[in-house]
Amino acid sequence: MTMSSQQAAPGSTASRDRLRRLFTPRSVAIVGASDRSSWSHRIRGALLSIGYEGEVFFVNPRGGTAHGATAYRSVSEIGQVPDLVYVMTSAEASLAAIAEAARLGTRSAIILSSGFAETGPEGLLAQQRLAEVAREHDMAVLGPNTLGFANPARRVVLMPMQPGDELEPGAIGVVSQSGNMAVQVMSMARSFDVGLSLLASTGNELNVTATDVLDYLVADDATRVIAVFLEAVTDPAAFRAACLRARQAGKPVVALKVGRSEAAARAALAHTGALVGDDAIISAVLAASGVIRVDSMEDLLTTADTFVRSGPIGGRNLAVVTISGGGCDLAADRADALGLHYPPLGEATMARLRELLPAYATPQNPLDATGAAVADAPLFGAAIAAVADDPAVDVTVAIGEIEHHAPDSAWGLDSVTAMTAAARQAPRPVIFTNTTIHTISAGARAVRHELGVPSVFGGMDRVLAAVAKIADWSAAPVSPAVQTHPPASVSPAGPVSPTGETPPWPGPAGSPGLPARAGTWSEADARRLLERAGVPVVPAVLTGSPEEAAAAATQFGTPVAVKIVSPDIVHKTDAGGVALNRDGREDVIAAARQVLAAAQRQNPAPRVDGILVSPMRPEGPDVHDLLVGVVRDPDWGPVLAVAMGGIWTEVLADVSRVALPCDRTAIESAVRALRGAPVLLGARGTPGVNLERVVDAIAAVADLAVRLSEDLVAIEVNPLRVTTDGAEALDVTVQWR
Amino acid sequence: MTMSSQQAAPGSTASRDRLRRLFTPRSVAIVGASDRSSWSHRIRGALLSIGYEGEVFFVNPRGGTAHGATAYRSVSEIGQVPDLVYVMTSAEASLAAIAEAARLGTRSAIILSSGFAETGPEGLLAQQRLAEVAREHDMAVLGPNTLGFANPARRVVLMPMQPGDELEPGAIGVVSQSGNMAVQVMSMARSFDVGLSLLASTGNELNVTATDVLDYLVADDATRVIAVFLEAVTDPAAFRAACLRARQAGKPVVALKVGRSEAAARAALAHTGALVGDDAIISAVLAASGVIRVDSMEDLLTTADTFVRSGPIGGRNLAVVTISGGGCDLAADRADALGLHYPPLGEATMARLRELLPAYATPQNPLDATGAAVADAPLFGAAIAAVADDPAVDVTVAIGEIEHHAPDSAWGLDSVTAMTAAARQAPRPVIFTNTTIHTISAGARAVRHELGVPSVFGGMDRVLAAVAKIADWSAAPVSPAVQTHPPASVSPAGPVSPTGETPPWPGPAGSPGLPARAGTWSEADARRLLERAGVPVVPAVLTGSPEEAAAAATQFGTPVAVKIVSPDIVHKTDAGGVALNRDGREDVIAAARQVLAAAQRQNPAPRVDGILVSPMRPEGPDVHDLLVGVVRDPDWGPVLAVAMGGIWTEVLADVSRVALPCDRTAIESAVRALRGAPVLLGARGTPGVNLERVVDAIAAVADLAVRLSEDLVAIEVNPLRVTTDGAEALDVTVQWR
Repeated sequence: MTMSSQQAAPGSTASRDRLRRLFTPRSVAIVGASDRSSWSHRIRGALLSIGYEGEVFFVNPRGGTAHGATAYRSVSEIGQVPDLVYVMTSAEASLAAIAEAARLGTRSAIILSSGFAETGPEGLLAQQRLAEVAREHDMAVLGPNTLGFANPARRVVLMPMQPGDELEPGAIGVVSQSGNMAVQVMSMARSFDVGLSLLASTGNELNVTATDVLDYLVADDATRVIAVFLEAVTDPAAFRAACLRARQAGKPVVALKVGRSEAAARAALAHTGALVGDDAIISAVLAASGVIRVDSMEDLLTTADTFVRSGPIGGRNLAVVTISGGGCDLAADRADALGLHYPPLGEATMARLRELLPAYATPQNPLDATGAAVADAPLFGAAIAAVADDPAVDVTVAIGEIEHHAPDSAWGLDSVTAMTAAARQAPRPVIFTNTTIHTISAGARAVRHELGVPSVFGGMDRVLAAVAKIADWSAAPVSPAVQTHPPASVSPAGPVSPTGETPPWPGPAGSPGLPARAGTWSEADARRLLERAGVPVVPAVLTGSPEEAAAAATQFGTPVAVKIVSPDIVHKTDAGGVALNRDGREDVIAAARQVLAAAQRQNPAPRVDGILVSPMRPEGPDVHDLLVGVVRDPDWGPVLAVAMGGIWTEVLADVSRVALPCDRTAIESAVRALRGAPVLLGARGTPGVNLERVVDAIAAVADLAVRLSEDLVAIEVNPLRVTTDGAEALDVTVQWR
Repeated sequence: MTMSSQQAAPGSTASRDRLRRLFTPRSVAIVGASDRSSWSHRIRGALLSIGYEGEVFFVNPRGGTAHGATAYRSVSEIGQVPDLVYVMTSAEASLAAIAEAARLGTRSAIILSSGFAETGPEGLLAQQRLAEVAREHDMAVLGPNTLGFANPARRVVLMPMQPGDELEPGAIGVVSQSGNMAVQVMSMARSFDVGLSLLASTGNELNVTATDVLDYLVADDATRVIAVFLEAVTDPAAFRAACLRARQAGKPVVALKVGRSEAAARAALAHTGALVGDDAIISAVLAASGVIRVDSMEDLLTTADTFVRSGPIGGRNLAVVTISGGGCDLAADRADALGLHYPPLGEATMARLRELLPAYATPQNPLDATGAAVADAPLFGAAIAAVADDPAVDVTVAIGEIEHHAPDSAWGLDSVTAMTAAARQAPRPVIFTNTTIHTISAGARAVRHELGVPSVFGGMDRVLAAVAKIADWSAAPVSPAVQTHPPASVSPAGPVSPTGETPPWPGPAGSPGLPARAGTWSEADARRLLERAGVPVVPAVLTGSPEEAAAAATQFGTPVAVKIVSPDIVHKTDAGGVALNRDGREDVIAAARQVLAAAQRQNPAPRVDGILVSPMRPEGPDVHDLLVGVVRDPDWGPVLAVAMGGIWTEVLADVSRVALPCDRTAIESAVRALRGAPVLLGARGTPGVNLERVVDAIAAVADLAVRLSEDLVAIEVNPLRVTTDGAEALDVTVQWR
């Protein structure tokens, strides 16, 4: 739970200073230190291994000694104020120790102890008391129920570690809401020689949230890319804003957000006591915030590691250089599955390769430089240089067991040196990876570090996936204007207000001519709201009797749809309140009577606003239906859904989602991303629908949703009829809380 | 290239004896041994490390010593006949050494040397000479252009290794057509403590193919699962038969077959000189052969390793036990994406868990046994036992860092012992895996081996994918009847022959009433062939003039389709040779003239067989079109494709493929596997098509294709009109070589 009312907001200097104090303490007191506690041993061992240069005090109420040094009975007894207290006692004792340290002036704490909000009502109460203390003394508390953090770049590790768990400093900042997933990152980083700038687990997030840490990492010089494991985001707006700051700083946020499945939502509920939001909404919001979403811990770390080595990647045109035909084939298949392309190499490149390679090698992309590159040390580097220089190539991936072979094989140091030099001099990114994932020797680690080899752990399977994701991230606009400016789809004059007011619009409550904002509006009211917002809506006349309906029908000159308009009948099609394709006076009168009778079957005395008569629109090969809806999530805000109508929605679940606000480009992309898009855009040589007007209509719906108050639950246009001429809403629904 | 005309076929005792000799030599001569050759050092080192107990001779034409022992000038000079020669000299010298050894009576050889078929015409010639020698002396030759093999189960390694590359004996037999991919398996196996029964790379496959090795592993007692890396299969029928023998032996074949992409096909061409078949056909054939197909080397080894620990898995109902909420969430999401299900636990299980777990833990599936399981050693084992006993659970996966923590942590040996005992006593499979992939310490390896911990390398991301694939494999029928019996869809009386002959049918060449089997038949001939095979075909009359066409049209009582029938016009729709929906005498005459004129535009003097007149069939909500086709691949045999017609085929590429012959169940599954299947089967409460008759019609097409000779290129029914009543072919094509 965030204490946002009291503490500095993420993005502020105060907030970042608060976390800088937390992550770089000059002195630490370990409360609960004991020779008999393995946690105590591991924390102390971690500080020793990393070479922590600050002061360390041990506190234990029984006094005596711990780890061969004095154990103070309390923090007060130390005689000076530690920058940070690390508390590993029972929940109750922890609360007392924190209160004591806070009174003394300690501004940072880590609480390993569990027994707080995650255990039930009693623990929640304890956590609330803790929060009060922290707020009173402006103390930053990581946890409770956290492992702590590792800050290898600044030589502070306050996280239990085992011997051999030493971390290398690097450029990946990691924040995890799960302690176990922080341990996983540590294990992988150690196994595969990945450097970290910071690794923090936030536990119950008393007053240091994952968003706070993420924002700190945006400003942290040592960090070039941010990896996040999320269970539940407590303040989505702040999270989204922090992600956009990262985007503006050129630092990708790579996120693994669990809770895609119902089962996961249930597990997270038990674990964190926080609700996991609807996954589709979160996906849309993450996409709109420039976040790279991944599905596994391995992909989380590999994607971040790849970015550290590659930086931004200018496109999906890939070159691969291997020394194995099998590796070449695998790289080809994998890239194909990921939508990466192998551009043909230019003539200049081909000439360079023909000169370099043995006669039986085939100069092409992907390139098998053959076993000759094993015998001839500089050959592999020269082949990489030739390919990476090709202007058609956005990124070059050299695949081979560099680390494994570097220290002592024929294909040794010379070769790795040549490869590294080629990468350094290349005009566009060059990265190296093993063919598959496996461990590297201590000697190979030393060579990697000494030469600064741009090699990425994980094996080509995951590294090529990372390349594809980074290329997408690099291509996305750096600063979506929608976060700070009005949506680009709004005309300069602003939309027409339903009440004739000038924007900001509409006002806080119901407006003249429209009912109060509650429940589900009648179609007639919903139509008016959308019409006034500039959404093209099919013409209609609200009539007071079957006779009036018949008279209205004649003016359209086509068959008509006849619908009941009643606040008591929400699902009017299911209730029999809609009659389609009626033609001629008698038929329309019969239809009107039929829908009235249907209303009465639902409710003997229904409130009837009238009978809505509108023209039927012709069907045809270039006439299609979309479903356009906006749902406002109480936490994550409004999300637009665009779906192919009819069978496409039902059978194929063919839906694109975009977090709002967004610009026209995002809406057009959403339409184009539909699997059925070729049908809309003109399959089989047909002309296709008028995409510009379709986007206009969808943008008008989206803008309306953004401008409406938070009382909105949903707007739905179903169908939005789209044709070669344009778009027209045939039926609309507006729902309020 | 296989020498199948001369040597024992895979599956025979002779073939298996031949490979047993190759893989278990009692004496080895290394030709080209030298202190200056790193290959020589590595081969000798590998033999030393594994503790090879046979005799090793070094051969070098310069004599002297190698590796501190006598270097013989030739194999003859040794004075006894080695069981196997390992040759690493130039191509020419290799040929001479092989010939000499073969004359002396050596029956097995490995040729590391390259410079054969993979380098061009000259190398191919050398390889052919090698093949002659081998054939003459019945010598099994692994390679040339191979690294060799490792047989840790029998303590023979004839593959260049680095210090530290020692392999553990185990139950996974691996065969790779790529040497580099064999090295990858070795690296992963070594890094993650995976045991192998055999690892062989087949190189240029002079006379030992991947299929030969696969078949040997089917009979090898040490092998429980077979992993295969394939570039191009030289004898698909033999490969398929070997896979089916593996299936019958209860040993899964897990295959990574490269060449999915066009780019990969090009790369493989350069690499092996062999064509990579069309990937969709291969997928269908692999599926029909009971092969588990994977997309990465990591998945290849993890899937095999999982099977070694799990054995067959009875279904997709999964239980997961972790000690971390984050791990639980991840496992839930991953299983959901893989189509694995978490059944609710039964009341008895819930009661056991409530007793075991702390109050704040939630008994559910997936289960977070919480950090309490870290402090309380037997708790985790007891939780696993409780869950694994639940009758709703087909397989239990315990996720935690077992190996990493076993030797020296609080959650140590007691806990691992309890977990292992729980797994051993469980009524259904229980496996363990790390949360993510990372290395394990030497101490943890020792514990794994000592206790026989059923832990699988790779991390849950890949292990859960393996579980899903193994569950599918376990559910598939063990011995597809189609391989040895006539297809089940053929009626006992057999199909009606187009010539009135009794089956086997049809005869080797053209039959009376039908033209010779060459080129593309006219629609009229194709219709007759399919009609006689029992495929329901729309009625039609072949007429000789526009007047006759009009007369024929009247008999149908509906609008008609009018089509030109001419051997000179293959794509008659494109050529304007088809007129649809014509009604009334004048209209039909005009249509017939129009299609004749179109034929003349294509060819001033076209051969015209007539004008085909057939009734138009009505469209409607429960009327759909399928495309049903059979393509006969020259190597892999006939493959049936079933696709949703129209927009579904074009936009969505909604196609199912089945290798033939197959039974009705497979055809029905293919229809149900279409994304558009809900439309056929009755979406939105409509009745759906008559599936039984649809399957009948498709089976009739499939049976016909199987029974036709190898001259067939393709049969296509497009569309097969399917309705609530049945199925009817509206247009058909038959093409011959």
